[in-house]
This record gives sequence, C-alpha cells and structure tokens, in this order.
Amino acid sequence: MLSEVPDTVLADGLKQIQREVDSAFDAFLPVPADSRARLVEAMRYGAIGGGKRVRPLLVVATAELFGVDRDVAVRAGCALEAIHVYSLIHDDLPCMDDDDLRHGKLTLHKKFDEATAVLAGDSLHDLAFEILSDVETSGDPFTRAELILTLAKASGMNGMAGGQMMDMMADDADYDLHAITRLQQLKTGALLAASVEVGAILGKVAPEGRAHLRAYARDIGLAFQIADDLLDHDGDEAKAGKALRKDDEQGKQTFVTLMGPEGAREQAKALSEQAVGHLASYGEDAALLRALARYIVERDR
Amino acid sequence: MLSEVPDTVLADGLKQIQREVDSAFDAFLPVPADSRARLVEAMRYGAIGGGKRVRPLLVVATAELFGVDRDVAVRAGCALEAIHVYSLIHDDLPCMDDDDLRHGKLTLHKKFDEATAVLAGDSLHDLAFEILSDVETSGDPFTRAELILTLAKASGMNGMAGGQMMDMMADDADYDLHAITRLQQLKTGALLAASVEVGAILGKVAPEGRAHLRAYARDIGLAFQIADDLLDHDGDEAKAGKALRKDDEQGKQTFVTLMGPEGAREQAKALSEQAVGHLASYGEDAALLRALARYIVERDR
Repeated sequence: MLSEVPDTVLADGLKQIQREVDSAFDAFLPVPADSRARLVEAMRYGAIGGGKRVRPLLVVATAELFGVDRDVAVRAGCALEAIHVYSLIHDDLPCMDDDDLRHGKLTLHKKFDEATAVLAGDSLHDLAFEILSDVETSGDPFTRAELILTLAKASGMNGMAGGQMMDMMADDADYDLHAITRLQQLKTGALLAASVEVGAILGKVAPEGRAHLRAYARDIGLAFQIADDLLDHDGDEAKAGKALRKDDEQGKQTFVTLMGPEGAREQAKALSEQAVGHLASYGEDAALLRALARYIVERDR
Repeated sequence: MLSEVPDTVLADGLKQIQREVDSAFDAFLPVPADSRARLVEAMRYGAIGGGKRVRPLLVVATAELFGVDRDVAVRAGCALEAIHVYSLIHDDLPCMDDDDLRHGKLTLHKKFDEATAVLAGDSLHDLAFEILSDVETSGDPFTRAELILTLAKASGMNGMAGGQMMDMMADDADYDLHAITRLQQLKTGALLAASVEVGAILGKVAPEGRAHLRAYARDIGLAFQIADDLLDHDGDEAKAGKALRKDDEQGKQTFVTLMGPEGAREQAKALSEQAVGHLASYGEDAALLRALARYIVERDR
C-alpha cells in the first residue's frame, strides 16, 4: 500500500504552480510602449491569476517522474495553459457560450471588447507555440517538434476545437452516452492528455513506454468532465466564479442527465481510482499525480 | 541587364501554386464522419479556392533559389497560407471589420455562423503549426523549430495580431506616416516577411546570409500594403471581390490619405523597384521573385 499525500501537499503543489505560471506569463508578456499595449493588457488579464493551473501541474508532475528540470517543465506547462486560456476567452464570446463571468471576474470581452477578446485569444494561441519552439530540450531538437505536433493536434479540429464543434451541434444531434464521451474526450480530454504527454516527451519516454500514463490521462480527462457536469448541476456559483446551471437551462445532454447525479458521481470516482491504478509502476514518485486524480473529482470549482 | 519574365510566366506560376495549395488543403482537410463535419467544411470553405496565394508563392520562389524540393516548399507555404486565411476569417467577423464578402463569395460567418467562423479560424491556426511540425527538413530537426518560431512570432502579438490591434486603435491614436508604416509592417508585412524567411530557412541559409532577402521582403511588404490602400481607394469592387472604400468611410488614415493617391502610387513603385534591386546577387534564379515584386503593386485585386 502506497502512502497517501496529505491534502496540504496537493494544496502546496497547486499554490506553487500557480505562482510559477503567473510569474512566467508576467515575463512572457511585457506591455509594449505603443498601441499594442491594450492587446497585451488583455492577454495578461486572461492569463495571469485565477486559473487552477491543472494542465501545467500535470506537465510538471509527469515530467518530475523522469527527472526533468522543473523550470523547463513549467515553461512547457505555460504553453498548455496558454492554449487553455485562449480557448476559454473564445468560448466565452457572445457568439459562443456568451458568458459574463470567469474565475470570479468579468470575461475578457466584457472587461475589454469583443474584437480585443478575439485578438487576445489568437495571440495567446501563438504564444503557446512560441514558448514550445523555444523550450530547452537538452540538445535534442526532435523533442521540440514532437512537443509542438502534440499541442497542435490536441488543440485543433481533431482535438479541443473539434470537440467544441460537436458540443455546438449537440442540440440537433441528440447525443447518447457514447457520443457525449467522444465529444468530451476531444473537448476537454485532448488537452489534459496532451499535458501528460508533454511531460513524458520532456522526460524522453519513447511512445511505447507511455501506455500507463496515457491510460491515466484518459481516465482523469473523463473524470474531470463528469465532475464539471456535476458542478454545473449542483455546484456553488460563488465558488465556481462563473454562471452554472446553463446545461440544464439549455436542455443539453450531459453525463449528469444521461447517468443521473448519483451514477455520474460514482463513475467519476471509479475513473479517478482507475487512473490511480495505472500509476502503480511509478511508486511513490507518482504521489502528486495520484493526488491530482483525486482532487479532480473532489474540487468545488 | 537581367532578362524580364514575361507576364505569362508569372501568371503560370500563380496558377500552378493556386492549384498546388488547393490540392494540399484538400488533402489536409478530409471531412470526418461525425458532427465535426461542419467545422471541417467551414475550414475548407475558407482555405480552398479564391486566394491569390502570394505567401505560398513567396515561400516556393525563395526556396527554389536554394534547390529546396518543391513539394516541401509548397507544404510549408500552406502553413503560411493557413495563418493568412485564419486571420481573414477572424478579421471579417462582425466584432472586427464586419465584412460580408471575401474573394467574391460570402465571408465564412455569413455562409456558416459566427461561432463556426471563430472555431474554423482557430483550427486553421492550429493546422499551420501541425503542418510545420511535420514538414520534411532532410533530417535536420533544428530547422523545424526555427520554422515554427518564425511563424509564431510573425503571427502573434509582435506581428500580425499586434498590427491588427494597432489598426483597431487607429481612430483614437491619429497615426502619422511613421506610425502607419510601423502598423502595416506588423499587420501585413510580418507574414509576408515570414514567407521569404521560411523559404530561406528551408534552403538552410544561415541568418547572416539572409540580409538581401529580408530587405526584399521588407520592401514588398510595404509596397503590398500601399497597393492595398490604393485598391481600397480607387479599385473595382467586382474584381476585388470584397467591399472597398471602407477606409474612406471610416475616415481612417492610410498611405493614400497621408501621401495622396499619386504619391502613394509612386512610393509603391519605388519600393517595388528597390525590392528588385536587393535580388541582384541571385541573378536569373530570382526571376519569379522579381516578377512578384512588380505584380504586387500592379494587381487589381
């Protein structure tokens, strides 16, 4: 029986990565002395503060299994986070989900304007690739191309954006559990899986050595989304920092409508424990990844 | 005195690259058999047919100076074009320039809807990096990272998107000729310059050997935008395939308002000839780049 990480270790891990990511974005985004200032201010508004930083923590926690330099892993984690943040900014737009609040503050198009939100999202999208093409890979440039390809695939039409499109088509398509699972594997799962993958790539793990980590990532990806659906169903708006109950209002199929709240809660826990099981071969070193798998289904925001 | 390329050679070159780019995008964008189909249909609508393909032609014409395999250069050219197309799709959105026509057909958000236009732009943005991370670089992976960094910088806050932001701030900022030049160097020039740079990187030209090509790219970038302002001022909407006279209506400062139509026309021609001058050391091999420099200021769309 592996010893458990106390909650404070996870809490400290989250606090540390949040500090590191904020500090890295601060350095990536100096405000220029010309009229681009508004764009960079908007990027900073979206990227600094507020997020849980689950994706960078996944990168760092996976990379540290293989002794990767923490600074390198944090930088790569910022690339994943930049993609995540850009997608939230675009998803919040009036023509998409039309949300006014995110992380307890005004969404970017509410604080600035829609055009600035489109451009700030686009520029964070570029920043992600700029960061990765500059990441230190100990003189192994093949690694860099693999990192970038992994991120581009997870983010584009066969990943996050594809899942978002399937989500937009949900009203007409009347999805069943199989279709919702596929949709969420793309919309949320692809970028979470890419976070673990990027950690393994930085650790020079060959693709054939990544099976357990990929299985872990697949399970937490699904567990994460089920937990999200549960939060939307019965969470606290003040804690979540955004509008909830939108799925219900729109009559959308979710894991909760398809499995019931109790079934969904059990399924999320089972996936989380299954994810933990995939880490057995990594022993104590994977304590943080295990704690993350449990946090993902127990979080209140 | 170098011999001139007859107009038919340029026309043939444009026709060939247009065919190659269309065919490459067709292969990059197979329509999936699920509800992502609408997203990929939208990406195809934006990416296939219609464009002049100046950026891919710049990549190919530069790369062929150094004996780069044409297929490789065409693929890399598609990455530049994917960025260009994504930027047009987002620029045409109601919250940005609010245009209904592009290349003589409905803009993407008019043909589909705004949310699909945001996502299709985002997915073409990813496709560009996916293409580059997979481009054949004769076993030299450093080249790939340099290609990607070049594209990310040209596209993001310190390139095209930054220029777009400066453009949006134009009403308040009351730009002079110096500021408009800087704005356009970012908004249009950065991606045109990146096209030439990508051709040189594929050709394994070290940065210190790119001075003449960079000077060429800077001059045609500015000439291209002055010609665009002239087209907006006195072009034919049917030929342009989009709404014109928008700058005038909005009372925006452009090269035409700041220099007058005649001054602008002379300046564009002078820049085009200056660009041609930078190619002297490449002799006959640069015939297509020379023809392109002249075409850029003489085109009617």
